[in-house]
Amino acid sequence: MVHIRNAALEKQSDDHFHHLGITKNSADLRKMFGDIKFLCMGGSMKRLKNYAEIFAKELGISMSDNLSTTDRYSIYKTGQVLWVNHGIGMPSASIIIIELIKLLYYANAKDVVAIRMGTSGGIAIPPGTLVLTNGALNGELIDKYVQYIMGKKILRTSVFDAEVYHQLYNVAHQLQLPVQIGKTLSVNDFYEEQTRMDGAFCEYTEEEKFAFLNHLHKLGVRNVEMEALSFAALFNRGNIKVAVICVSLLDRLKNDQVLLGHNDLNEFEMRIFKVISVYIKQQLKLC
Amino acid sequence: MVHIRNAALEKQSDDHFHHLGITKNSADLRKMFGDIKFLCMGGSMKRLKNYAEIFAKELGISMSDNLSTTDRYSIYKTGQVLWVNHGIGMPSASIIIIELIKLLYYANAKDVVAIRMGTSGGIAIPPGTLVLTNGALNGELIDKYVQYIMGKKILRTSVFDAEVYHQLYNVAHQLQLPVQIGKTLSVNDFYEEQTRMDGAFCEYTEEEKFAFLNHLHKLGVRNVEMEALSFAALFNRGNIKVAVICVSLLDRLKNDQVLLGHNDLNEFEMRIFKVISVYIKQQLKLC
Repeated sequence: MVHIRNAALEKQSDDHFHHLGITKNSADLRKMFGDIKFLCMGGSMKRLKNYAEIFAKELGISMSDNLSTTDRYSIYKTGQVLWVNHGIGMPSASIIIIELIKLLYYANAKDVVAIRMGTSGGIAIPPGTLVLTNGALNGELIDKYVQYIMGKKILRTSVFDAEVYHQLYNVAHQLQLPVQIGKTLSVNDFYEEQTRMDGAFCEYTEEEKFAFLNHLHKLGVRNVEMEALSFAALFNRGNIKVAVICVSLLDRLKNDQVLLGHNDLNEFEMRIFKVISVYIKQQLKLC
Repeated sequence: MVHIRNAALEKQSDDHFHHLGITKNSADLRKMFGDIKFLCMGGSMKRLKNYAEIFAKELGISMSDNLSTTDRYSIYKTGQVLWVNHGIGMPSASIIIIELIKLLYYANAKDVVAIRMGTSGGIAIPPGTLVLTNGALNGELIDKYVQYIMGKKILRTSVFDAEVYHQLYNVAHQLQLPVQIGKTLSVNDFYEEQTRMDGAFCEYTEEEKFAFLNHLHKLGVRNVEMEALSFAALFNRGNIKVAVICVSLLDRLKNDQVLLGHNDLNEFEMRIFKVISVYIKQQLKLC
């Protein structure tokens, strides 16, 4: 079962989901979400909607309207799968993750797997390679998600489900897509924390940048993005299994700028979808 | 002038703005953005577009199409003012801030003021009160924006321009809108880091929550949100003056849930716009 741990919430007569524009009592959440088995998420609203549309078309099933009434996050339902965007960065992702955990808890959902379908910068892997995360590091290079609660630093463990990422690896392999299992660095900005040299500010040399990226590689890090760590740590607390699959848009040992054309970017992003679509159909015995 | 500090960037023949979908050489940036004096920003794409539309209508001037071709951020231009959404949280905001600094640097823009027009939770102030930030604290209750660069903790100063927030205070006062000047707590989540008791997880008591909020109040904090600190710290580095004006949607000493109806929320959000609109018109001598 999906878990929460908040005695105060249990006493609340209703619950306003500020970022979804719905309340607990405004809808029959068990009927709407009780059957959910997969949460498919990613940063971009447009991309996740597109994935939902293709998935529904492939299966010949219907796709819901956007079930969120705010412009912050969108939620589309196709059978037992929700497609939800989480925006950019761990703070943005944390909000929708907490609201989804509450939603699925109220709905009595069980055996749920959350999958982040993201884009990332690769380290020593060709653009287009899929990376399945088996562990995530923060900006301090520690495998913990940090929260500051009442001024105190709290470290949260993050676990990526080995059974799920091995299954996803096998699917990618069967589809003949380039795929690796490795660690992911999850940081809080796109430029300096990723040692890019194409931002507005750069206080390190090219030598220092490559030394850092090579150090990451030795630690087992294969890609860098901005959400995997909180994604795992928060869903873990809700008793929801987690996988993160990201496509690499560039090799950071070659360059900093993303120079892909629209068609290449689209084809790369569709690689993630192909794997997840086959995997979910297998798991739900839909094909 | 808008500053950058990155020798490597100066050597790059072109610059791809990954999150805006444009490149330095694809447009005449000086012609498009050289005249910009105000960057008006906020989390929500829809709200910022709405502000831009009303501003253009009030002045009888034209509003550009969305100048960003990605779905991550949107940019609308009305005369010498840009209206840009930054998403939720400091990591999301940091990306568009860095790309805007580069854009305005290439455009040779000067004397630019960036204003965040946000929503927030108030502390001991009635809902609807406007808060002008005179200093921001992070989750550790320190007035520094933290970056981890190559694993090392770097602290960045953040300054809110006293002349600008006093001018904004006077405008709000003239418009007879409730307004205060105070500190802002900028944290990385909406629930636990803000000591809310309506999230999926809560490991503190109501007494501890109120003790923390009262402690914040004694430190001069009047509202809590998720962006002001990085907003100031990053724009400061680009030699862009900063102001942050947020409306309080609730008093956190009274409740955690945002229970405002659509009309109240809309009226509160328009209070921010009214102040900024009058202020910009005064500054640009448009009325």
